[in-house]
Amino acid sequence: MIGEFELIRRHFDRGPARDARLGVGDDCALLAPLDPHSVLAISTDLLLEGRHFFADVDPASLGHKSLAVNLSDLAAMGARPRAFTLAIGLPEVDERWLAAFCEGMFALADRHRCELIGGDTTRGPRTVCVTVFGEVPEDAALRRDHAQPEDDLWVSGALGAAAFAVRERRAKRPLAADDAAARRLDRPEPRVALGLALRHLARAAIDLSDGLLGDLAHITERSRVGAEIDAPAVPVDARLAGLPEAERLHLALSGGDDYELLFSAAPENRTAIAAVGARLDVPLARIGRVVCGSEIRVRDARGRPLPVEARGFDHFA
Amino acid sequence: MIGEFELIRRHFDRGPARDARLGVGDDCALLAPLDPHSVLAISTDLLLEGRHFFADVDPASLGHKSLAVNLSDLAAMGARPRAFTLAIGLPEVDERWLAAFCEGMFALADRHRCELIGGDTTRGPRTVCVTVFGEVPEDAALRRDHAQPEDDLWVSGALGAAAFAVRERRAKRPLAADDAAARRLDRPEPRVALGLALRHLARAAIDLSDGLLGDLAHITERSRVGAEIDAPAVPVDARLAGLPEAERLHLALSGGDDYELLFSAAPENRTAIAAVGARLDVPLARIGRVVCGSEIRVRDARGRPLPVEARGFDHFA
Repeated sequence: MIGEFELIRRHFDRGPARDARLGVGDDCALLAPLDPHSVLAISTDLLLEGRHFFADVDPASLGHKSLAVNLSDLAAMGARPRAFTLAIGLPEVDERWLAAFCEGMFALADRHRCELIGGDTTRGPRTVCVTVFGEVPEDAALRRDHAQPEDDLWVSGALGAAAFAVRERRAKRPLAADDAAARRLDRPEPRVALGLALRHLARAAIDLSDGLLGDLAHITERSRVGAEIDAPAVPVDARLAGLPEAERLHLALSGGDDYELLFSAAPENRTAIAAVGARLDVPLARIGRVVCGSEIRVRDARGRPLPVEARGFDHFA
Repeated sequence: MIGEFELIRRHFDRGPARDARLGVGDDCALLAPLDPHSVLAISTDLLLEGRHFFADVDPASLGHKSLAVNLSDLAAMGARPRAFTLAIGLPEVDERWLAAFCEGMFALADRHRCELIGGDTTRGPRTVCVTVFGEVPEDAALRRDHAQPEDDLWVSGALGAAAFAVRERRAKRPLAADDAAARRLDRPEPRVALGLALRHLARAAIDLSDGLLGDLAHITERSRVGAEIDAPAVPVDARLAGLPEAERLHLALSGGDDYELLFSAAPENRTAIAAVGARLDVPLARIGRVVCGSEIRVRDARGRPLPVEARGFDHFA
């Protein structure tokens, strides 16, 4: 039976810090900005058993997702990933479980050159709290409060597949692990390269975790603007092709866990943004516009208002 | 019934960021170093119900302690507190509980000018993960790997009271909330001012969370040195006065949760360090020395080796 410190050494300590000044193993990690005009972007997410995942979760997927949802927040800020801390609670020492968790986490971390610099390991209910650090020039940060009337609204990728997978699982119709929708839910790919490319092109941005309309409301509230969405322009995931139209739209507009980027940009940047999408091979769709006021309206193909349930996911609702 | 975002607004959003460039309410918080020669010191701690606290914990004490244990890590690095994030899981919306938690947390945060800049709020088992950010000139950081043979070993305050309180609670002999030992356990005071004053005076430092001998072993391992402790010089908390000698020593050497600072310093700094203790009104005791080798020895008043259980707290032992 190995102890806490040996566990940390075997699974989390990968040698001297690469980018940070000091990594795993001291009271604190030490991190310095690479650039004097940059600021550190910080985000934290807490994943709890029974709420965000179940006891039988695939540990590699959980390792991936724990970091992915945080990298997605950096992407939405236009920040370049630098480092992260991991606080983890484990009911017992299960080295196989932990090795798989680390494999999923470090594979994603290495692809984004994001280094584990510290954390906390404790016995208890299975719990994962990742805090991530990125860097962004202060004047390039894609803040939620920077949208302006007349801005276009854009979204990356296609929406609704993760929400579909959640629905199927809740209805005890589990999908195969390699089902496209299951992969969207379990192994989301944070849009880090897109976030970086949108610096100075987009004005406001947010990542879609609670659903398009709910997350859009965070932008409109903080920017004190309204928005209009053209329903037919909203990209719906191909996995949902067999569903009735209203259901597809509902999953795309209100389903969560997509981890795509929603952003606003001045109309003069349309060509440049389309070029970014082509270069990165990321579909980018123009789905509406920012308007004066405070309301969010969704319109059908003929411009008529659609009655939609605008609320995003609320943990306590 | 209020929702997640209203909960955040009411309890966690205290208006525009004071020191950070961007605080609660966006995908990320934005933090910039105040000084170009400084680095950011980062620490994270996870507190789980049933492990670190019980369901009937006093929420104000939990709020205090969640931040205090992290500020203690900054103190042990010689870092000045700047900001923190809070990821919290709550089984239900209990505004009275949350208000008390915040009262305890923010009272300590405000005293140290440490600002809440972001976090995550979710429903689930009661869970608290604080990540804290401080600033320290890189060459002044009190790292665990900087101890040198011939250094004196010092400790602040008096030890053992928190471990005594844990023992009494486990034995179902709970102490009054205002008992000195209970307060040491529930409301530890991080030694932030001492950590700052020890910059350029101490070489290595660590905060005592797992017990003096266990935490000393982290310094000796990382610095590749040994250590000798003079048992009679170890300051034992007055609350333990009634206990047999061996028990007092055991609680002081191996009990955890003291959150005092253990540090090494060159002998030529003795007068300056004593002056720091006098100025801050913090008792500082010289309890031994760093030696060559890798062993930790404890000696009695006549210099004879004492057999001691050297292991600190290990979550998986």
